[in-house]
Amino acid sequence: MNNIEEFKIRVINLLQSLNISNVKNINIFMEAFTHTTYSNEHKGSRNYQYLEFLGDAIIEFIVTKEIYNRFPSYTEGIATKHRAYVVSNKTLSKLSNKLGISSIIRYSKNAFINGKNEKVDSDFFESFVGALFVEKGLNFVEKFILKYLDSYIDQVNKNDFSNPKSSFQELIQMHSTADIVYRTNIADKGGFISEVIVDKQRYGVGYGKTKKEAEMNAAQNALDILILK
Amino acid sequence: MNNIEEFKIRVINLLQSLNISNVKNINIFMEAFTHTTYSNEHKGSRNYQYLEFLGDAIIEFIVTKEIYNRFPSYTEGIATKHRAYVVSNKTLSKLSNKLGISSIIRYSKNAFINGKNEKVDSDFFESFVGALFVEKGLNFVEKFILKYLDSYIDQVNKNDFSNPKSSFQELIQMHSTADIVYRTNIADKGGFISEVIVDKQRYGVGYGKTKKEAEMNAAQNALDILILK
Repeated sequence: MNNIEEFKIRVINLLQSLNISNVKNINIFMEAFTHTTYSNEHKGSRNYQYLEFLGDAIIEFIVTKEIYNRFPSYTEGIATKHRAYVVSNKTLSKLSNKLGISSIIRYSKNAFINGKNEKVDSDFFESFVGALFVEKGLNFVEKFILKYLDSYIDQVNKNDFSNPKSSFQELIQMHSTADIVYRTNIADKGGFISEVIVDKQRYGVGYGKTKKEAEMNAAQNALDILILK
Repeated sequence: MNNIEEFKIRVINLLQSLNISNVKNINIFMEAFTHTTYSNEHKGSRNYQYLEFLGDAIIEFIVTKEIYNRFPSYTEGIATKHRAYVVSNKTLSKLSNKLGISSIIRYSKNAFINGKNEKVDSDFFESFVGALFVEKGLNFVEKFILKYLDSYIDQVNKNDFSNPKSSFQELIQMHSTADIVYRTNIADKGGFISEVIVDKQRYGVGYGKTKKEAEMNAAQNALDILILK
């Protein structure tokens, strides 16, 4: 059995494990799981990039619609933050690992000598969604995505995203057990300046007329840096 | 008749002129056409921003899907450029004007003392699409959008977007009759350096080993600056 046949079998097994049956065109999934380093070395093979372009827009649309429907009183600013959290590389790469996508990717030998990063795994989740859309249509993809993203869309309610301190806490606690410390001092020009620190690292800085305002602004600054980058 | 009733009638007339009938919730369209300067001054009124957030994702999804279906042999890079062109502020603000959206917006007196810009009109096209989606669902919106965006999706074929010089020409000719001039010279370090100039203004600069390569790169640079900004 050659490498291509082996890869194909891995892809078929993955789809079966995800209860995706009656697939007409297995090639589209092989394309979705092929890294550029492989396609560069094997002329004629397509890579995941175009399907990722498609999948990215699909995920963005579905998540946007769900946030809009579930949180009708959001402002656009809060909705944007909530969406950035749901479609972050962190969230999508986790799903990529959970579903077994990351482990079947086809790439050239020296592709990830320094280890794969979250962005790569996240990209392959997107290309997979693109392929699933081509094969099964929007309704199928929507159900599939929401099965996995539902909790990310629901777990953070309006109050959390309206309050930068609790949003930041929520984000940090997903990935770390370290304490969040606000180091707040009187500013030279009056008012307060606050730094938010996790595990000896400064995540954000904020200024405010009150201590509370300074801390809120520091948390907001940290969120902006973390989520929106 | 007060201002709110007048505004409502303008909105109803607009929808009629666009053959959008049996509207259950006219308020959602009033929200879509309300600028922040108005909602800031009138507590309790919602503005277009959340619907714009929604509409933006819808347009992006529909256009992405269409480009994917119509141009199966695109690379992701070319597809991204094509999409940026279709969903550009330039294109969407044109539609906003064409459909009569721009002229019925509700805003405070001093909102646009320096004139409205393309971004504002484009944003209101997006919020309108968001409202239309809430009221009529995806299929209706898709038909509506494609009626107007079809030509933008179709008019540029693969060759144009693969060739930065002709892409750039196409873009410029949509808005200007000025000539496009490539001013190309031998570079100090060898090779060529090219500037692309329209109407005395420099749009991009490129370096290349050949004259042709330098001009291609200059056009690409101009496109990147124009489309992707």
